[in-house]
Amino acid sequence: MQNVLKANDRIAAENRSYFAYKGVLAINIMSSPGAGKTTLIENTIRVLKDEFTIAVIEGDIQTTYDAERISAAGAQAVQINTGGGCHLDANMISHSLSQLELNTVDLLIIENVGNLVCPAGFDLGENYRVAILSVSEGDDKPSKYPLIFNVSDALLINKTDLLPYVDCDVERIREASGRINPDLEIFEISCKTGDGLDGWYDWLRAKVK
Amino acid sequence: MQNVLKANDRIAAENRSYFAYKGVLAINIMSSPGAGKTTLIENTIRVLKDEFTIAVIEGDIQTTYDAERISAAGAQAVQINTGGGCHLDANMISHSLSQLELNTVDLLIIENVGNLVCPAGFDLGENYRVAILSVSEGDDKPSKYPLIFNVSDALLINKTDLLPYVDCDVERIREASGRINPDLEIFEISCKTGDGLDGWYDWLRAKVK
Repeated sequence: MQNVLKANDRIAAENRSYFAYKGVLAINIMSSPGAGKTTLIENTIRVLKDEFTIAVIEGDIQTTYDAERISAAGAQAVQINTGGGCHLDANMISHSLSQLELNTVDLLIIENVGNLVCPAGFDLGENYRVAILSVSEGDDKPSKYPLIFNVSDALLINKTDLLPYVDCDVERIREASGRINPDLEIFEISCKTGDGLDGWYDWLRAKVK
Repeated sequence: MQNVLKANDRIAAENRSYFAYKGVLAINIMSSPGAGKTTLIENTIRVLKDEFTIAVIEGDIQTTYDAERISAAGAQAVQINTGGGCHLDANMISHSLSQLELNTVDLLIIENVGNLVCPAGFDLGENYRVAILSVSEGDDKPSKYPLIFNVSDALLINKTDLLPYVDCDVERIREASGRINPDLEIFEISCKTGDGLDGWYDWLRAKVK
C-alpha cells in the first residue's frame, strides 16, 4: 500500500507540472454518490463557459451517463470508467490527458467516483480539492468521515432546498468541518434553485485568474 | 489483493460457521453515507425487540455516535472504528465477536461503513446482504454502482417521503437493479414516516425463523 501511494504521488506531481505547463487550473470534486457533483459541474459550465474554457474528466465505475451530460452542457469531456475501482488515481488522470486538448483550456474539472472515503487518499495532481456534502446525508458526516473534509480546500453544502424536509443542522456541519480544517471555505448551495452558487463561481473565478 | 480477498473469505467462512453454531442470523447492511442505515436499525430494534433478541455491530471510520444510538434504541451494540478503512472485513467482525454475548441473540445486524462501493467486495460471513439507496441519491445509481446491487439479497429504497422534492424515478431504480440482480427483493420505505417498513419487518421475520 505504501508503494502504491508513493507511485501515485510521483505521477500526481507529473500531472501537476503538466497542468502548470499548459496553464490549466485543475480541481478535483469529491462526494458521496448523488450529492450533486455532475449537476454542479453542469451549472458551472453553463454559467462560466463564456468567461473561460472548461474541460471535464468524469470518473465513474461504469456508464458514460455523466460525460454525456457534460458534453450536452457544452464542455469537452472524457469519461474514465474504473471498472469497479472506488476512486480515481493519478495514473488514470495521466492516461486520460492524451484524450483532451488542453492548449486552450483554463479550467479542468475532475469529477471523482462517488465515494466519501477513498478518493480523499489519492492526489491526482489537482490544484484544489472540493468536497460536496448534501444536507440529506446528515450533519454528522464531517465527524464520521473526517479525511475528505481535512484534505479539501472548499466544501459545498448542497441541496439546501431540502432543508425543510430533512433533519440536518447546517451549523453543525460548519462547526465540525471547521474544527477538522480551519482553512476550509464553506458555501451553502442549491444546484436545483441556484441559491448560493454565485459565491462558488466567484471562488472559481479567483482561482482561475 | 487476491491474497487479501482469499484471507478474508477464509475468515468469513469461519464467522459464518460461528453464527450457525450460535443460532444467529447475521445481516450486513450497506449504503452510501446518510442513506439511513442507522435510522433503519433503530426502527427495526424498536419494533422487533419483543419478538427476538437483536445485537448490532456498528462499522464507522470514526466516532461512536451510531453505537450510542443503537444502545439507546435498546440493543446490545459494539462499535468498530476502521480508522480510515473504507469498509468492514471479516477479520474486524471476528475480533468484535468476543465483545458480544451471542448465546441469546437471534439476529445480528452489521452496519457497514457508509460507502456504496468497497463494502460490496468483502464477505463478512453474513447470511444476507441488504443495500439501502435513498431517493435523494438519484435513480442512476444502480447502473453506476452495480456491484452492491448485484451482491445484495434485498434493496431498501429509502426516504420516499422526499420524492415530491427530488428528481428520482423509483421505477428506474427498480428496473435497473432488477436487471443487475433479478433475485433482489425490493422495498420502498421511509424511515421517517414508517411507510413501507412492514414489508421489511416481515422479510426479516421470515429469515430469522
